[in-house]
Amino acid sequence: MTKQLNAMAAEVPRDAPWTAARAGEYDGQTFETWKRANVQSEGGRFLLDLGVEAVFAAEPRDLSLLHLLFYVNSAGNESTPGTFDRLIATAGGAQESRFTGGSQLIARGLARRLGKRVITGAPVRRIEQKRGRVSAVCDKLTVSARQAIVAVPPAVTPFIRFDPLLPGPRAQLLQRFPMGSVIKCMAVYPKPFWREAGLTGQATSDTGPVKISFDNTPPDGGPGVLLGFIEGQEARIWTAKPAAERRAAVIESFVRYFGAQAADPTAYYEKSWAEEQWTRGCYGGYLAPGVLLDYGPEIRRPHGRVHWAGTETATIWNGYMEGALRSGERAAAEALGVL
Amino acid sequence: MTKQLNAMAAEVPRDAPWTAARAGEYDGQTFETWKRANVQSEGGRFLLDLGVEAVFAAEPRDLSLLHLLFYVNSAGNESTPGTFDRLIATAGGAQESRFTGGSQLIARGLARRLGKRVITGAPVRRIEQKRGRVSAVCDKLTVSARQAIVAVPPAVTPFIRFDPLLPGPRAQLLQRFPMGSVIKCMAVYPKPFWREAGLTGQATSDTGPVKISFDNTPPDGGPGVLLGFIEGQEARIWTAKPAAERRAAVIESFVRYFGAQAADPTAYYEKSWAEEQWTRGCYGGYLAPGVLLDYGPEIRRPHGRVHWAGTETATIWNGYMEGALRSGERAAAEALGVL
Repeated sequence: MTKQLNAMAAEVPRDAPWTAARAGEYDGQTFETWKRANVQSEGGRFLLDLGVEAVFAAEPRDLSLLHLLFYVNSAGNESTPGTFDRLIATAGGAQESRFTGGSQLIARGLARRLGKRVITGAPVRRIEQKRGRVSAVCDKLTVSARQAIVAVPPAVTPFIRFDPLLPGPRAQLLQRFPMGSVIKCMAVYPKPFWREAGLTGQATSDTGPVKISFDNTPPDGGPGVLLGFIEGQEARIWTAKPAAERRAAVIESFVRYFGAQAADPTAYYEKSWAEEQWTRGCYGGYLAPGVLLDYGPEIRRPHGRVHWAGTETATIWNGYMEGALRSGERAAAEALGVL
Repeated sequence: MTKQLNAMAAEVPRDAPWTAARAGEYDGQTFETWKRANVQSEGGRFLLDLGVEAVFAAEPRDLSLLHLLFYVNSAGNESTPGTFDRLIATAGGAQESRFTGGSQLIARGLARRLGKRVITGAPVRRIEQKRGRVSAVCDKLTVSARQAIVAVPPAVTPFIRFDPLLPGPRAQLLQRFPMGSVIKCMAVYPKPFWREAGLTGQATSDTGPVKISFDNTPPDGGPGVLLGFIEGQEARIWTAKPAAERRAAVIESFVRYFGAQAADPTAYYEKSWAEEQWTRGCYGGYLAPGVLLDYGPEIRRPHGRVHWAGTETATIWNGYMEGALRSGERAAAEALGVL
């Protein structure tokens, strides 16, 4: 069934999904509707559900079929077509690599090179455009320039006041770009005990809260770390529960997959991204039916001197770090072009 | 076909649509999907499209079938079941009455009775809860109380900063409650000339931008006023166009319906609600597939001392003034109950 999806995705233009020949049909339905019509086996449906939850941190019913097809096509590059498998695969896919030391090292390394030009702890409250300048107004600081790039998620942009106001179509796009729902959970053990039993630490299950796990042990082999994802509907349910209850349920999932030794971690860490002030969800923004058709052309349309970056504006690897990087280059070129 | 919809709607509990026996099936699909599967004639599909555009200022593909069914059931009261016809009908339906002098008279009359307690022109920027009090912080004013009621549309709530932060599920609900898209247009003539030709001033058309019109002439018979609605996709397209171009297209619609005399109005007024700072759309918020299932219980859940009103929280006549009124009474009772 992913073959059929890949073939459909290949016909959805990455830079303008709303111009696809069957855009009206695809954006009129949820991915759930397509799944029910085209996948008959319970096992096949379950695997698609799990794949969508892992990729979007949302449910098949939340997504426009057109958005999903765009996203699949976007998981390629100038020379390689995107495929559903490239999204979900470890070997050769988006889930293959981790950063030794954590992915924040990239941001920190870049910040070090930029020095004092990087200001943290100063959220922008307002963006004003007047007299040929654009100003980002923080609580104790105002930065003025000829062009500005906003790179927060669409769902976070409404926290900023714009003067002049955002035009109606952009304001309405921002009402229609929700973030996924995920809680990332890690249990730490003295050593990766599951390896002795010949287990990889990777599990997929139809029973939550953790339906997907990975071995997140550091490359030097210790301590042992099991990583579990609570995604989509499960995350929406579990984020509101008491921390102790959630921890117990996560550990119970690990015991189910890797045995009684998982019952007593030396440490436990978790992050519910919906609770995070400056993203209010993860991994990125996705689109329900109808949005690409009626608001798609707004996604990258500048607001005067304000340009839009962020992975949700990317045409290649939308939703990933690669897309964020590419969107930054595109927005920078756009701003430089009008300077 | 509306009989079938009404029967399905009757089984969707107004106060908890997500508990309906077939909630999963209904919230997994768009109304567009249901329409294509259940209505075969082009005429029937057109009428449903027009009805949805008129009621939600959105397209059938934008809406969860479950949300639409809830909305239909909500168009009743304690003794009367809701029906699709009650939503779209003039005689005996939601479109029957206008307020002589304009509906703002109600708000103004109530404000007069409340006197200085009503403060306008002071948008709330922050809502803080600490030491047993809740404070609404405006630019030049802070109001403190034991309980607070927020009655702005869900899509506008993110413009307010909350301390403590809104919990994840509510923050994510607010990302998923978009406003409809409508431009309301009025052309004024010396007299209601169409009446002389035996015309009501009401038109429905499959060609935009105005697909629905009404005679909005004041009760005393003059001047003549034609009211045209640009709704859903048409509104999303036309709100971004130059005013003169939009005016010409609206007048062209009126000429098409009522003859050459419509070509030269003495005045023309319009309001594109997506451009309006404190609603950013109209008539109200609607829900895409999946939202009621995973976020429905959040709609009326208080945030500490903050209670939620507004027509989007109503169980009866959700989306209408009646629903707004009822939601205010419910929220007030809720706040009084914990005082």
